[in-house]
Amino acid sequence: MEEVKNRFVTIKNHINGAPNESDFEIRSETIYTESKQVVVKNMYVSVDPYQLNRMKSHSSSQAAINFSAAITLGQVIDAYGVGRVVASGRPDFTKDELVVGLLTWGEYTIVEEGRLLNKLDPMGLPLTHHVGPLGFSGLTAYGGFFQVCKPNKGEKVFVSAASGSVGSLVGQYAKIFGCHVVGCAGTQDKVNLLKEKLGFDEAFNYKDETDLKSTLKRYFPEGIDIYFDNVGGEMLEAAVANMNTFGRVAVCGVISEYTGGGRSAAPDMLTVVYNRVTIQGFLAADYLKCYGDFISTTAEHLRTGKMQALCDISHGVESVPSAFIGLFRGDNIGKKIVQLEMNE
Amino acid sequence: MEEVKNRFVTIKNHINGAPNESDFEIRSETIYTESKQVVVKNMYVSVDPYQLNRMKSHSSSQAAINFSAAITLGQVIDAYGVGRVVASGRPDFTKDELVVGLLTWGEYTIVEEGRLLNKLDPMGLPLTHHVGPLGFSGLTAYGGFFQVCKPNKGEKVFVSAASGSVGSLVGQYAKIFGCHVVGCAGTQDKVNLLKEKLGFDEAFNYKDETDLKSTLKRYFPEGIDIYFDNVGGEMLEAAVANMNTFGRVAVCGVISEYTGGGRSAAPDMLTVVYNRVTIQGFLAADYLKCYGDFISTTAEHLRTGKMQALCDISHGVESVPSAFIGLFRGDNIGKKIVQLEMNE
Repeated sequence: MEEVKNRFVTIKNHINGAPNESDFEIRSETIYTESKQVVVKNMYVSVDPYQLNRMKSHSSSQAAINFSAAITLGQVIDAYGVGRVVASGRPDFTKDELVVGLLTWGEYTIVEEGRLLNKLDPMGLPLTHHVGPLGFSGLTAYGGFFQVCKPNKGEKVFVSAASGSVGSLVGQYAKIFGCHVVGCAGTQDKVNLLKEKLGFDEAFNYKDETDLKSTLKRYFPEGIDIYFDNVGGEMLEAAVANMNTFGRVAVCGVISEYTGGGRSAAPDMLTVVYNRVTIQGFLAADYLKCYGDFISTTAEHLRTGKMQALCDISHGVESVPSAFIGLFRGDNIGKKIVQLEMNE
Repeated sequence: MEEVKNRFVTIKNHINGAPNESDFEIRSETIYTESKQVVVKNMYVSVDPYQLNRMKSHSSSQAAINFSAAITLGQVIDAYGVGRVVASGRPDFTKDELVVGLLTWGEYTIVEEGRLLNKLDPMGLPLTHHVGPLGFSGLTAYGGFFQVCKPNKGEKVFVSAASGSVGSLVGQYAKIFGCHVVGCAGTQDKVNLLKEKLGFDEAFNYKDETDLKSTLKRYFPEGIDIYFDNVGGEMLEAAVANMNTFGRVAVCGVISEYTGGGRSAAPDMLTVVYNRVTIQGFLAADYLKCYGDFISTTAEHLRTGKMQALCDISHGVESVPSAFIGLFRGDNIGKKIVQLEMNE
């Protein structure tokens, strides 16, 4: 039996609007591990907007609760990440091995059997790449773009939250595939980054625009074939109004609505009918069947420099709450990751 | 050259809200036909809600105009129907033949080359069946249910405007296919008809309900797998809130919004994401590839009594405006047809 002193982030209360520092606390605990458990020292963990849905008391969506159980006050919070095994009671993991899987917003994760954990071969790439473009954000972008959007070469693609963890990858997949790609983001720096570093054909700052329908009409004079939606709300309405016949909208996230501040989208259903638009929600977990393709394709693109990984890293367990809160203010550029092991 | 005295319905002005008698007039004209034209005496013509979208001045949806050109004031209005050839300048049609295709809200149709017109074999079924369940309403129901909804046996299906021209057929296809089917309509008589004549498992009057989300939860304790949407608005929101994972919503029409009175649907996109719901607009014209299957299957069901054709017939060209206006008040039960040739 191993004794582990752990510090972790938890919520003090359920959160129904935008999250604040006061909603979180750092707790300390001593864990006495049992046989058949694997103890992982967390190195890099993912910080994602969807986690807010698990922190709500009465989720606006019953579905959210059904899919992903609500977080219990005071308990550890799951997060995807990369770590190193420090003790293992299982034959399939040994001490000092690198692993990737469902870790926690804490210094250590006690991994019970059945919990997602795999050995990690870094393939010569930085460990943060395995949390971002080769992690669940990557699979979300890959599955969402190729399986849900079903692109054809030359099609016109619009990506919202395009400098975010998923959007930045979708835009790059779409460019490599041969689509015309326009992204939007919330600062001029992000817009520049999309055009200069990620190769988007066009990008704009949605905060500078007063009439999003006209804005999209300007950027897509021939209409939008594919809209990869990370935000919902008014942008979804504006995109639907500009969709071409047989256009596809992949709904990946609804960040404008997570904090309860934004207006729900009321897309024009007459356009949906006449233009035969498909609006489809999806989760990365449904595309695990293309996991092998996803990893090999993406690792190759990263290695050859065809794709760029945007990672935005904070340091230490204490930084998790502010990293998370910042997501809803658009503070992050690319994948938000917290590095937990400082001597790495 | 043939001289035809024709009376037809037209609009005096564009219509942006609910239609009124004063928006329409009956005009008389004398047509001198040319060679290569076919003159059809209209017998039964279809009256459909979507035609209102063509009567708007500034369509709420640019898409509607793109797909289906706006109606010109004072001109004849196209409508699907059955008629008899009274003169033909084309070798492929002969006098006295029955035909089906794109006719008009008038006594005669002058058919130019390229306009949809086919010889009609009634297959021993009433001519009205060829306007309704074997016409475009039927193809809409068949294509929408089988191709868009992609049903599996045993799935739970919800149909709105279930006693309407399309809904009444969708519900019957779904029952025959082996689904559990619940419909809604706007009067108790219609509700009784759905359950007693059309074999729906359950039906309810939406006007008796105050909270549609709860109503659907009551009728679908295990959730909805397929929602065939004819109405949009609040019902679409309520259905989306009750969709099962991988549920499909086929958006066929948005009658609650055509007249500008209803509120646009703002379906909960968080449910769309977490439950991986697909919302897809469609038009019957996209499913012409399954026309042969559709006709043979449906004719067989009608002949054997497995399916019932609900037809609601008015008489004479003068009755077209009130028949059309009545669609938006829910006056019709089943397919609204105007019979134009009284001595048939």
